[in-house]
Amino acid sequence: MRYAVVSDNEIGDELGYRSNSIICSLVDILTIVRRQKAVSRSELAECTGLSRSAVSQRVTQLLDAGLLVEGAVGGFTGGRRSRLLRLNNDYGQLLGVDLGATSVLIGLFDLSGTLLVSTEHSVDLAHGPEQVLGEIVQDVKELLRAHQCQRLVGVGVGVPGPVDQEAGMVESPPIMPGWHQFPIAHWLQQRLGCPVLIDNDVNVMALGERVVRKHDAEDFVFVKVGTGIGAGIILGGRLHRGKDGCAGDIGHIAVTELDIRCTCGRTGCVEALASGAAIAKIAEERARSGDPTFLSKVLVENGALTAVDVGEAARRGDHVAIEIIQGSARYLGQAIATVVNCLNPSLVVLGGGVLNIGDSYLAAVREYVYKRSLPLATRQLRIQPSLAGEMAGVIGAGSLVLEHTFNCETLAKIIV
Amino acid sequence: MRYAVVSDNEIGDELGYRSNSIICSLVDILTIVRRQKAVSRSELAECTGLSRSAVSQRVTQLLDAGLLVEGAVGGFTGGRRSRLLRLNNDYGQLLGVDLGATSVLIGLFDLSGTLLVSTEHSVDLAHGPEQVLGEIVQDVKELLRAHQCQRLVGVGVGVPGPVDQEAGMVESPPIMPGWHQFPIAHWLQQRLGCPVLIDNDVNVMALGERVVRKHDAEDFVFVKVGTGIGAGIILGGRLHRGKDGCAGDIGHIAVTELDIRCTCGRTGCVEALASGAAIAKIAEERARSGDPTFLSKVLVENGALTAVDVGEAARRGDHVAIEIIQGSARYLGQAIATVVNCLNPSLVVLGGGVLNIGDSYLAAVREYVYKRSLPLATRQLRIQPSLAGEMAGVIGAGSLVLEHTFNCETLAKIIV
Repeated sequence: MRYAVVSDNEIGDELGYRSNSIICSLVDILTIVRRQKAVSRSELAECTGLSRSAVSQRVTQLLDAGLLVEGAVGGFTGGRRSRLLRLNNDYGQLLGVDLGATSVLIGLFDLSGTLLVSTEHSVDLAHGPEQVLGEIVQDVKELLRAHQCQRLVGVGVGVPGPVDQEAGMVESPPIMPGWHQFPIAHWLQQRLGCPVLIDNDVNVMALGERVVRKHDAEDFVFVKVGTGIGAGIILGGRLHRGKDGCAGDIGHIAVTELDIRCTCGRTGCVEALASGAAIAKIAEERARSGDPTFLSKVLVENGALTAVDVGEAARRGDHVAIEIIQGSARYLGQAIATVVNCLNPSLVVLGGGVLNIGDSYLAAVREYVYKRSLPLATRQLRIQPSLAGEMAGVIGAGSLVLEHTFNCETLAKIIV
Repeated sequence: MRYAVVSDNEIGDELGYRSNSIICSLVDILTIVRRQKAVSRSELAECTGLSRSAVSQRVTQLLDAGLLVEGAVGGFTGGRRSRLLRLNNDYGQLLGVDLGATSVLIGLFDLSGTLLVSTEHSVDLAHGPEQVLGEIVQDVKELLRAHQCQRLVGVGVGVPGPVDQEAGMVESPPIMPGWHQFPIAHWLQQRLGCPVLIDNDVNVMALGERVVRKHDAEDFVFVKVGTGIGAGIILGGRLHRGKDGCAGDIGHIAVTELDIRCTCGRTGCVEALASGAAIAKIAEERARSGDPTFLSKVLVENGALTAVDVGEAARRGDHVAIEIIQGSARYLGQAIATVVNCLNPSLVVLGGGVLNIGDSYLAAVREYVYKRSLPLATRQLRIQPSLAGEMAGVIGAGSLVLEHTFNCETLAKIIV
């Protein structure tokens, strides 16, 4: 065997984007204009390394296509005043759709990525894809009419299940009965007449969090603790999806050898011990079997308990509730510590309904993460609640569209 | 708060490398020549999008610097024959050093990354950095003399501890007493007169595995099961080091609630249950306390047991040995399943001395990984022994040097 220190594909890594250098220099120009907001042709020549004439030619193409507009007059260059270029924010609009277990949140953005308006309605995923997606199409059409949108650039959708991104469908989603392999992206695309991109809800939330945190978030893990538990992993500024698109499925990390069954069929998964559903289930069991407490009173009144009820009980000093929350936080902290030891991120962001339990919950999770992680891996680690909050999914879904719009392939279709 | 779907730094991501576009086009040209082995100036113009005259100018710079050489005459282009360019493999040499717990392996490579020769000697890390590194310097100087090397381009070193890459030192390494914060890279650099790059041994092994596997290894996890347990994570073709350089420290994933103490001070870590040291320790305890078996016989003969002894005993049908190996494989499989659920890689590579136990061990690990991972995450997952084998570390250390040599910053110093 011939040992060599370098592989061919490694050498080729950086060169792929050059396959269509004219189109890609258009992407570069658009990217610089988007970043700097307003820029002259001479600045573009300097930034890109392209000649003045090459820049002029490409800028004309982008002006003709309507993607750029000429704005204010800038400084003198080469003896004459140059006009500053900026992105045409009104070239078209895009939509971010966050499809949750019980509601759908839709945001309309302009091409700069600014949210114009958002709307929400409740859904029942069990009604199946055609009805639920049909309702979304109706919402979207009303939104577009109300805002007199002429051109829909694309739609991004976050869905609560494992996504086959290329196929645009979900694979055996536990909480989406009847959706398995339904062609979500294709179905919406046909009705809305624009590209539709789908991804897992937690991935999309991580993307949204990254947008909101800007420079602060190159390597982080977004952990959603809701009915289930999952994570979106951003590494080097990019979402890590994994080979089958299911990276970040941390809900099924084993955290105990106790025989506690999970919805996935295995035992001891963190989701079976620390999710909102698990907290509610454990609380109901405890409330039914033990002495009367605040929890048993709520259970009698409402017929069921939620994680938020448990949080409320804990705030009132209910010792059973406090114990349940500590247990959940411990197991969640242990699972997050595993992720921290594995990836050594600089930031773990916590989102999802269970976080509404309050600061005591976050503090307990933090304590267990630090206890179970290696000291070196937590030296610079921050553990924070989501800044994007309820808008994380919509913003992230919108960013999927922007990423898709401003790439070489899409641009090659716009610029003919 | 103004919600926006895009962050400024995201837009700037792809543009960084353009800060010095002439130097970087030199890197592009070198990269294409390295990949294609031999290439004409006109092909370079086509690949890079640069003008013919720009290509000619840059090629002349690279010929003058001695990095490229002109070889055979190629086809006709533009009415005259063009000479094919290739990398000057003899421009200089580089070294890959794999510093292990008990031995150091050194490989000398030419600039194409081909191994010229390798040498090995035993070391005792407890003798401290000055003595151990002094021995390495002596070895290196002999190697360079014997091969009449004129120019040493750089040295890459893999070390068995947590590495602060930028500082070029190790941080509280458990098996390197006296090495904490010793300036390894700087010390070697002063004595060898060339750039020295250091990284964690498992990271370097992962890089070496990637080189050997070529196109097959864009996203994989290299798990080393030796005295300890660790992993090197390659994502998108690049090593993921994490914020503090300690990503991949999977040896301290908790896999049991049993009170089994680990060297890290916590309990239930996979390293305390499944590493070579753990297997040997458990085997000695069992051999001392139980009925006489093959293991107790070896223990009496040698005064101690190793993981390989346990493997040999298992092959001979010793039921205690089989049980110990199954236990180790189960816990290792559980830890790997956690990594698989988290990252959804396409490949897990297993290396390190414990793999010498044999196929039955690998089969058992595989079984437990599949049992504990999500079906979607293992749909395309392969679990294989290392192809690079004992050379993984040396090759990976050498690849650190090549990566460093063929980047814009280094090249800017060579081309004046």
